[in-house]
Amino acid sequence: MTSIKIAVVGLGRMGKRHVHTLLYRVPRAQVVAVCSSDASEIEWATSNQEYKDFGIAVYDNYDNMLAHPGLQAVWVSSSTDVHACQSLAAIKRDLHVLCEKPLSTDLAEAQSVVDAARAKPSLKVMAGFSRRFDASYRDASLKVFDKKAIGSPFMVRSNTCDLRDDTGFFVRYAARNGGIFVDCAIHDIDLSLWFLDNPKPKACWAAGTLQHHPELKDLSDVDNAVGIVEFWGGKIAYFYCSRTQAHGHDVCTEITGTDGKVMVNVVPKRNNVVLADSLGLRHEVQPEYWERFEDAFAVEANEFVSAVLKDTEVPLPLESGIMVMKIGQALQHALLSGEVVRFDESGERLH
Amino acid sequence: MTSIKIAVVGLGRMGKRHVHTLLYRVPRAQVVAVCSSDASEIEWATSNQEYKDFGIAVYDNYDNMLAHPGLQAVWVSSSTDVHACQSLAAIKRDLHVLCEKPLSTDLAEAQSVVDAARAKPSLKVMAGFSRRFDASYRDASLKVFDKKAIGSPFMVRSNTCDLRDDTGFFVRYAARNGGIFVDCAIHDIDLSLWFLDNPKPKACWAAGTLQHHPELKDLSDVDNAVGIVEFWGGKIAYFYCSRTQAHGHDVCTEITGTDGKVMVNVVPKRNNVVLADSLGLRHEVQPEYWERFEDAFAVEANEFVSAVLKDTEVPLPLESGIMVMKIGQALQHALLSGEVVRFDESGERLH
Amino acid sequence: MTSIKIAVVGLGRMGKRHVHTLLYRVPRAQVVAVCSSDASEIEWATSNQEYKDFGIAVYDNYDNMLAHPGLQAVWVSSSTDVHACQSLAAIKRDLHVLCEKPLSTDLAEAQSVVDAARAKPSLKVMAGFSRRFDASYRDASLKVFDKKAIGSPFMVRSNTCDLRDDTGFFVRYAARNGGIFVDCAIHDIDLSLWFLDNPKPKACWAAGTLQHHPELKDLSDVDNAVGIVEFWGGKIAYFYCSRTQAHGHDVCTEITGTDGKVMVNVVPKRNNVVLADSLGLRHEVQPEYWERFEDAFAVEANEFVSAVLKDTEVPLPLESGIMVMKIGQALQHALLSGEVVRFDESGERLH
Amino acid sequence: MTSIKIAVVGLGRMGKRHVHTLLYRVPRAQVVAVCSSDASEIEWATSNQEYKDFGIAVYDNYDNMLAHPGLQAVWVSSSTDVHACQSLAAIKRDLHVLCEKPLSTDLAEAQSVVDAARAKPSLKVMAGFSRRFDASYRDASLKVFDKKAIGSPFMVRSNTCDLRDDTGFFVRYAARNGGIFVDCAIHDIDLSLWFLDNPKPKACWAAGTLQHHPELKDLSDVDNAVGIVEFWGGKIAYFYCSRTQAHGHDVCTEITGTDGKVMVNVVPKRNNVVLADSLGLRHEVQPEYWERFEDAFAVEANEFVSAVLKDTEVPLPLESGIMVMKIGQALQHALLSGEVVRFDESGERLH
Repeated sequence: MTSIKIAVVGLGRMGKRHVHTLLYRVPRAQVVAVCSSDASEIEWATSNQEYKDFGIAVYDNYDNMLAHPGLQAVWVSSSTDVHACQSLAAIKRDLHVLCEKPLSTDLAEAQSVVDAARAKPSLKVMAGFSRRFDASYRDASLKVFDKKAIGSPFMVRSNTCDLRDDTGFFVRYAARNGGIFVDCAIHDIDLSLWFLDNPKPKACWAAGTLQHHPELKDLSDVDNAVGIVEFWGGKIAYFYCSRTQAHGHDVCTEITGTDGKVMVNVVPKRNNVVLADSLGLRHEVQPEYWERFEDAFAVEANEFVSAVLKDTEVPLPLESGIMVMKIGQALQHALLSGEVVRFDESGERLH
Repeated sequence: MTSIKIAVVGLGRMGKRHVHTLLYRVPRAQVVAVCSSDASEIEWATSNQEYKDFGIAVYDNYDNMLAHPGLQAVWVSSSTDVHACQSLAAIKRDLHVLCEKPLSTDLAEAQSVVDAARAKPSLKVMAGFSRRFDASYRDASLKVFDKKAIGSPFMVRSNTCDLRDDTGFFVRYAARNGGIFVDCAIHDIDLSLWFLDNPKPKACWAAGTLQHHPELKDLSDVDNAVGIVEFWGGKIAYFYCSRTQAHGHDVCTEITGTDGKVMVNVVPKRNNVVLADSLGLRHEVQPEYWERFEDAFAVEANEFVSAVLKDTEVPLPLESGIMVMKIGQALQHALLSGEVVRFDESGERLH
Repeated sequence: MTSIKIAVVGLGRMGKRHVHTLLYRVPRAQVVAVCSSDASEIEWATSNQEYKDFGIAVYDNYDNMLAHPGLQAVWVSSSTDVHACQSLAAIKRDLHVLCEKPLSTDLAEAQSVVDAARAKPSLKVMAGFSRRFDASYRDASLKVFDKKAIGSPFMVRSNTCDLRDDTGFFVRYAARNGGIFVDCAIHDIDLSLWFLDNPKPKACWAAGTLQHHPELKDLSDVDNAVGIVEFWGGKIAYFYCSRTQAHGHDVCTEITGTDGKVMVNVVPKRNNVVLADSLGLRHEVQPEYWERFEDAFAVEANEFVSAVLKDTEVPLPLESGIMVMKIGQALQHALLSGEVVRFDESGERLH
Repeated sequence: MTSIKIAVVGLGRMGKRHVHTLLYRVPRAQVVAVCSSDASEIEWATSNQEYKDFGIAVYDNYDNMLAHPGLQAVWVSSSTDVHACQSLAAIKRDLHVLCEKPLSTDLAEAQSVVDAARAKPSLKVMAGFSRRFDASYRDASLKVFDKKAIGSPFMVRSNTCDLRDDTGFFVRYAARNGGIFVDCAIHDIDLSLWFLDNPKPKACWAAGTLQHHPELKDLSDVDNAVGIVEFWGGKIAYFYCSRTQAHGHDVCTEITGTDGKVMVNVVPKRNNVVLADSLGLRHEVQPEYWERFEDAFAVEANEFVSAVLKDTEVPLPLESGIMVMKIGQALQHALLSGEVVRFDESGERLH
């Protein structure tokens, strides 16, 4: 067995990119099918010459796709509200699952996927926290944990700031995703748990503002927010999320320890080009997270496929996403209520 | 009248530097006297050849110094606990005053200086918020306010992170200065008020940790802290203060607006030198704020002297420091209590 | 026809990497065979599980490999001295060829490959100037030619500086490659012709030094050299080549025009990580050109394969390498003789 | 004796700045007089309130200025063609001299100043190579010589690139200054001698181009040029000079050694401000060398004054400028003739 048959469900921006990643960068994965419930996506896929060349079947019904002959794995890249049920359906059919984060914005539903996966330990089920596979974050991890380059890490600052999207598309999208701290900061929260060695939250608070998208008010959300999470044991993380950056997709993380600091992408750059002209010296910034994390998605997909082929552990435990979601929801609650949200020493939310 | 006779009180690290600034960079100021209550500082000053060359009298009694023949102005550079009384004494004698920030950690006492100064409008009384005179912050102001380069500013991130001082000197010093948010973040708070156009605080929260200086616990302080201030009108500032950086004095500020962001000193550098060797490419960072802000102190002193000579407004209203102190104390309270501190719409603290 | 069968000849460092690129990043290429004349490389390849998984045949005889059933294309990645004869043999068998630069260090031999390729216009024959496929150089080209961002380009500075290799391997390798300006600067010369719009050389001079490898003296070479090429029409390029950098593989290019300058990789970085510690702020640099140009090799291979499949022009004319080689050899002559080498207005060398 | 009485001759851009430096940053110098032969400069100076405040006499006759009561030193900041004769006149009157570089574009004349100074060893006579006093170059020196951070230095790259001046003023100015390699590169040549430890030149070559100022052709000059100097002993320096940069005054130096590289100002910045907007991230560059080297001029002036007051050696031997000029003239000859200029092992030019 040198390759696996895989299907991608969801053909939005990311779904198409995942198909591309699988075709171009994951030689041990054979994309045999894609699926979408969106008519325009189906039309786009059925007329796509590349999909024909590579023999990719196009489905408009998820159950039918799961029945594709020989299918072994599914990459769930649909909207967040169906992540859990699609993952559960695939698990039921004994298919391996790589599911985009988060499993669900409902903690009980997310837990149900974790439970279903545990019940079938031979299946590989993983949530896609793509930054965990990024070369720079991995190098940061090497420096922090293997080389002890910064002593004991105690503070994380992490930002996820998107380029302003004046089409308003993101607003409709965001409405299904649990608010800015769940939708934007989830990776940052995950990074803080990684680099602070899985501390338990103690308290959090947040503040937000509406600068470009007043329509978010009715959706109980904001377009810019900052939040602090205090952990038990004297560790702290703080976050800035924004939907309205003028200069590009700006995602940076700083991990401060007792003897130093590791900085990841504090000065974002699209490439190695600098232009010197009458405005001075300038460089461009990636427009969105795809450009920043394209390589990470390829590593993630290859490692997932390798875990399936070699029957090894997936690189990231599925349940780690649950605590991330708890913290994201607490920050969102703090943002909307103005109150501090507190946790007990086991990390259980107190109110 | 082309120059003024000025004295410096306090000959700690900063007092000595202020004398140097006056001698080397403020030709219209003539340093005629210095004063200290510390015997070793007095000894140092009386044996200093440069002070002899320039004819600087050395006093161990502040009142005597104030009576120095022809004295016109005083630069108060003593410890924070005597800033107010020394400023008041100078004002009483009709001397112009440049007082290091803050006027006092006691709001009533600080207000008493403001009141005394108002009662003698012919006197120039200024609190030394040195960053206001820094070329980069002024350029940032030009971009934000004059050129409208970032649209409407709504968020400020600002850090004051000191190089770790293993001598413990700072701990004794800090005990007199009101805690980390009052001592360290006061400039950052001032900058946030400047760049957000004097908003009124609405609520704040903070979290801190002790990483190197457990002895601070007894002094109700921490060595690293982050805090968020939410202002009325949808503006936000957040701060990181640290006493324990490994790499140098790291002071940066980001002002985010609706159309862009201005970043000041986000990548701190000691000078223009980069060393490439087997570790990669590296540059050094200023060890302390003197190296970062030496030029700003010279500008500050020249502008203060010019205001005296030309009888013009001092560049920074004395009372602006009061709101800075209110916010600093609220953050410190939030840090120690774990509770949100709230303000009414006029910026008055509610509890 | 949706993919081509391709073989790689030469299994040194780069040959192995090219196989990897074809497997992992070029879905329309099927690697069916590899070939080496080196026993240890053969042994390595025959025992390689991945090669077995993907069904790659291993040959120790180049002619036999060319006879592999269904083979359509060859990637020549052997040592420079056999580039030409292996390319000619492949062309003779009507196989498409992607040949590593340079075709040959002998201009007549290089021309013979160009002639053979011209005689079979249906074949795609390309020399691998990988930097032409790098995202940053392509963005530079976009800025220079499409956006006219720097006015009229008239000067190029370009460096190829390798990390010091104390194993001495490179010295033996270099002996076969025509000297530092032919071996190292060939890409820089190619870039200068690209960005200066194919000017004709007028004169050149160079100077070099031996700092780490005195043994190069007997091979008529140096380990560090700088050279200037003056072109007809007032354009200039200058180069620095080094075999002895302490900090990594440092390849940068600056294109100066009448209204600005485009800089590519002037501050080399391995990734997005910066470490702040007691030495200041530092980042690492790529150790060799593979890390810098891995993506470019994937683009190059995909574009070559696409040209074969779609029967379109290869992205880079084969003959463009001839002028690059002429200039490289003239610089090497100037370096060794100390004399200026001059060219007539058609770019023919005068002596 | 705690200060000296000094006069400045020449009130062009730099002369005015030197007066400012002396007034604001050199407390042990008392500016007693200025002198110019230009009527508009005289008018400007006589109506200048600051000059009045500080009691500065304004002369239109150099000899009269030299006779100013009590005058002890002169800062020669006139045009290059009168540097030597004004220095000689001052020396004749037993005045200390700080003369802008170069002493003369005529080597014999320059030597006559050196001889005159040697004949009066009690006088302090110094040529103003301001970069020698720059904090970054001094830090580079510390790293190279004291810390041996780069092993043995063997190569220097150094640029002096001026912002384009469309007023044409510089052309008229340049005509008196010996050509681009003498006028622009003189500091770079000086730096190469400094950091390569005073090697003797062996050969040099150069190429230039006219991009913005065709009128320079009649003056036997160019507006952009590159040159290489090979030194005896395997050391090399290469230079790029430009009058036509779009982005600012760009002066950088790289010193490469056997174990590393020191880079000075490779990424020029006006201040610590970065603007992020729809164009990406950008910073400004100093418009001219004054902004880059203002601090260096203050250090230079203070050290010169200190040498006078304490009767110590000037920090830079006067004769060191002679070799700098020899190399500059050789490069200019190579540029215009297209021929290599060679030197014997003692550094004497051969033809």
